[in-house]
Amino acid sequence: MAGTMIQKMRTRGDQENEIYIKRDDLLPFSMGGNKVRIADAFLNDMRKSGCDAMILYGSRHSNLCRVLSNLCFQNSVKCVMICSHEEEEDDEATNNTHLIGWTGTETVHCGKKDIAQTVDRVTEDLRAQGYRPYYIYGDRYGQGNEGTAAMAYAEAYREITAFEREQGWEFDYIFCPSGTGATQSGLICGHLLAGDRAKILGIMISSREKERAFRVISQGVRGYFAKTGQALPENFEDEIVLLDGYRQGGYGVYDDRIRACIRREYCLNGLPLDPIYTAKAYWGMQEYLREERISGKRILFLHTGGTPLFYDFLAKEGTKEEKC
Amino acid sequence: MAGTMIQKMRTRGDQENEIYIKRDDLLPFSMGGNKVRIADAFLNDMRKSGCDAMILYGSRHSNLCRVLSNLCFQNSVKCVMICSHEEEEDDEATNNTHLIGWTGTETVHCGKKDIAQTVDRVTEDLRAQGYRPYYIYGDRYGQGNEGTAAMAYAEAYREITAFEREQGWEFDYIFCPSGTGATQSGLICGHLLAGDRAKILGIMISSREKERAFRVISQGVRGYFAKTGQALPENFEDEIVLLDGYRQGGYGVYDDRIRACIRREYCLNGLPLDPIYTAKAYWGMQEYLREERISGKRILFLHTGGTPLFYDFLAKEGTKEEKC
Repeated sequence: MAGTMIQKMRTRGDQENEIYIKRDDLLPFSMGGNKVRIADAFLNDMRKSGCDAMILYGSRHSNLCRVLSNLCFQNSVKCVMICSHEEEEDDEATNNTHLIGWTGTETVHCGKKDIAQTVDRVTEDLRAQGYRPYYIYGDRYGQGNEGTAAMAYAEAYREITAFEREQGWEFDYIFCPSGTGATQSGLICGHLLAGDRAKILGIMISSREKERAFRVISQGVRGYFAKTGQALPENFEDEIVLLDGYRQGGYGVYDDRIRACIRREYCLNGLPLDPIYTAKAYWGMQEYLREERISGKRILFLHTGGTPLFYDFLAKEGTKEEKC
Repeated sequence: MAGTMIQKMRTRGDQENEIYIKRDDLLPFSMGGNKVRIADAFLNDMRKSGCDAMILYGSRHSNLCRVLSNLCFQNSVKCVMICSHEEEEDDEATNNTHLIGWTGTETVHCGKKDIAQTVDRVTEDLRAQGYRPYYIYGDRYGQGNEGTAAMAYAEAYREITAFEREQGWEFDYIFCPSGTGATQSGLICGHLLAGDRAKILGIMISSREKERAFRVISQGVRGYFAKTGQALPENFEDEIVLLDGYRQGGYGVYDDRIRACIRREYCLNGLPLDPIYTAKAYWGMQEYLREERISGKRILFLHTGGTPLFYDFLAKEGTKEEKC
């Protein structure tokens, strides 16, 4: 996996913090994003497990499902996507929907209560066809494979520490959007192993209960340390920080403050941010820095990609005659 | 300017050539593409010329106008865009239209016969406001600044030779889409200076007359050598190769072969190609290699970006239930 660059951002009156951004939106596969690293970790884990078919679960708007369906196609790996009805905020097709469609990935629809049974059924079907299937989330209840997704950013963290060594200083804060928690748990693992000063802050972008989000991240960190046979530091849970004050109406809901943030960061930094994940997190970061009167610090924002969602936004909202 | 990576492509039965791609679509500003390098060259040249306002010319769908309007905004440089009516294939707003709109770039419309007068008028207006304006294409007839745009790829060529040195071999062919000719003339300059074996082939994507395209590229090469005070090799025009058999119906016109190419390269390589420039050129390259029975060669395709046009295509054609 080639690394991605860290760029200094131009800012407007942000308490004189130095803001940097890690451009994981430019990972060179399937329109980029954090899911490229995570999908890679799943494919490697599938192979190590002696399996040859992948079972995904997600909505047809999902960034992870886009990248995984693409990666499976590229590697001629059988792929079945379990698609929950209720996950879909609305039924409109998005860029990710189209791209998943191009790969011809087999899709099985199910209600949200029926996921476990559907995982079982798809697993049995694939076995009957001679495959050894791998469900990315572990068991039928989606448990047991948290360490694999965390691995992606535990490893990517080395790119951050390499950058810090080059610069001769360390970041004070690292911000990321916190959705499934996989990226944040990976960053925490990397931070624990590096023993550096950075405080990692996840900006919650959905209305997922904070305690549940905390638990999932904790499981990710435990899973990674167990998987790699390393000693898990005591009090590691102190490193899990979730900021829940910036989710606006919950997953996919956003107002004019997010719209303005998207336009501003495009105009000022030539950067695509999407309203569901990255712009909400970027805006949340700016709000937090202001509210907490943080200044004179070096701050890294992890751009987790989702560029297809930026273009969904642009197609939908670009016509409004708004300026930066 | 940070360099971009060169990736090996997965291919399907392509006469066993090794195809590589230089990912200039991932240049980390304004959605990437060759115009990022070219816009940078214009901004530098403007400053060297002691000017402080930029006059653009192009359609509101233009990749160059997107990047330049963005770069001027970022650098607080006054920017006026002269927008020709007839240039627009149709009047539908595209992703580039929206992005240009966000920057609030002042737009002056004009008919295609009135460009010279409009350049004069905008120049005078800006002078009256106290600016020292810079027209990217040189004089009122769009002549005299060909060397600046060529400079971008004359310099980028060093990234190609650095890659070759790492690999211990040289490319046999370098393909690029040939539109305005700026990128191709830059590559030719780089090649002449490196003295390497690569044959540079431009796939024409519009119905521009071949002789005119040849002349423009020749002017670009001359302009670059004059600008940098280097000796122009005799017979340099032998290096200008334009392939005009793959333009289908001309600029912006494409059929199912291009559509299939876009889907295939996304599925196989996780790559965005747009129907107007990069997919037409990539498809043209594949056709040419087949027709000429070229095999066992190392080939570089320059991905010149235009990702906003990939998403225009996806929004328009993604819903058709086509698979790879």
